Amino acid sequence: MRIGIIGTGTVGRTLADKLVALGHEVTLGSRTKDNPKAVAWAEQAGPNGHTGTFADAAGFGEVVLNATAGTVSLEALRAAGAERLAGKVLVDISNPLVFSAEGAVSLDPVNTDSVGERIQREFPDARVVKALNTLSAPLMVDPGRVPGEHNLFVAGDDAAAKTELVSLLGEFGWPAEAVIDLGGIAAARGMEMLMPFWLQLMRAFGTTDFNYSIKRAE
Amino acid sequence: MRIGIIGTGTVGRTLADKLVALGHEVTLGSRTKDNPKAVAWAEQAGPNGHTGTFADAAGFGEVVLNATAGTVSLEALRAAGAERLAGKVLVDISNPLVFSAEGAVSLDPVNTDSVGERIQREFPDARVVKALNTLSAPLMVDPGRVPGEHNLFVAGDDAAAKTELVSLLGEFGWPAEAVIDLGGIAAARGMEMLMPFWLQLMRAFGTTDFNYSIKRAE
Repeated sequence: MRIGIIGTGTVGRTLADKLVALGHEVTLGSRTKDNPKAVAWAEQAGPNGHTGTFADAAGFGEVVLNATAGTVSLEALRAAGAERLAGKVLVDISNPLVFSAEGAVSLDPVNTDSVGERIQREFPDARVVKALNTLSAPLMVDPGRVPGEHNLFVAGDDAAAKTELVSLLGEFGWPAEAVIDLGGIAAARGMEMLMPFWLQLMRAFGTTDFNYSIKRAE
Repeated sequence: MRIGIIGTGTVGRTLADKLVALGHEVTLGSRTKDNPKAVAWAEQAGPNGHTGTFADAAGFGEVVLNATAGTVSLEALRAAGAERLAGKVLVDISNPLVFSAEGAVSLDPVNTDSVGERIQREFPDARVVKALNTLSAPLMVDPGRVPGEHNLFVAGDDAAAKTELVSLLGEFGWPAEAVIDLGGIAAARGMEMLMPFWLQLMRAFGTTDFNYSIKRAE
């Protein structure tokens, strides 16, 4: 499958590596064509790894992954172009973290809106699925780093888009029954609001190799 | 032990029942002395169950539990009186849920502050521990309703207060190793921000008998 990734940070490059290793063809998109991180990534990725602008990546992908910081996602997707996102599964992995000068972390948007919802509103023809924003990049593509059963969450208005994503997550090693469907894209709000708690757990444990397992009465 | 409970809702009464069943003496405090829910509770609770005002409950308790709605907790604790809370473990179980006319749920405060922090700031002599706001009332006092290992979280600036609470939670059936210490009271922020996600899980599962289990690399 051809996959476009918007964003060249740790999340984007980790997903790009895994997708190429699985035999997919990936374009890693950045603001400018000659982004050094993207160029360096493509050099070691082999023939199935490409780089380009956000628009190149979005045009290339049958599926598009938003791996930018949530505070700049809309701007990046505008550069990608609504016409290149229309009809495609657009997986929004972002968290809108804002770091204060004092080191405090907050979210923007939060509470009455979310990045996932904003993307779906601004790009109504994209099939937005919020996913993978609740765990570390290495764990996204290698669930076995944490033992036992643990969960991913998806939210989106397009049921078929969620099904397509669950299939791709299966290639990463996530059993379909590990993926909890929270309903429409409005549920992105609660998923994004997990991040402050996740950061506290990271500080308490001293590692990012942890994840949520939701236990329930049988 | 003598325990004062501020708030006569489901959370307050469920905790009161369990504490009396465990042999503790409880005063369930309400805004007015003759609150019908509190009076009805005391009638069936036996000789160790009492009712009174918020001030009566706070004065009575060696430990005080805030089981009011987070949006009115400060007002209730002001009525309880700073002098009756000073030096005591004050367990804040609240979530500041705001329900819009359209049925949407949000939090106030959120993101850059929390009820737990506000209580500790306004009552600096109370030993505030945020706890138990991340699961349903029946599950708080009966962890076996959900099979397997699952977790509680505590946050507070007073380490001894957290240890005292972990001991009380042990009487409810929670092993000490199930309780994850997230650090100072500022971590109340992330704990309260779990609530929108919890509500989404509740809708997805159709039950409140579920809880978070945090899995991590060994």
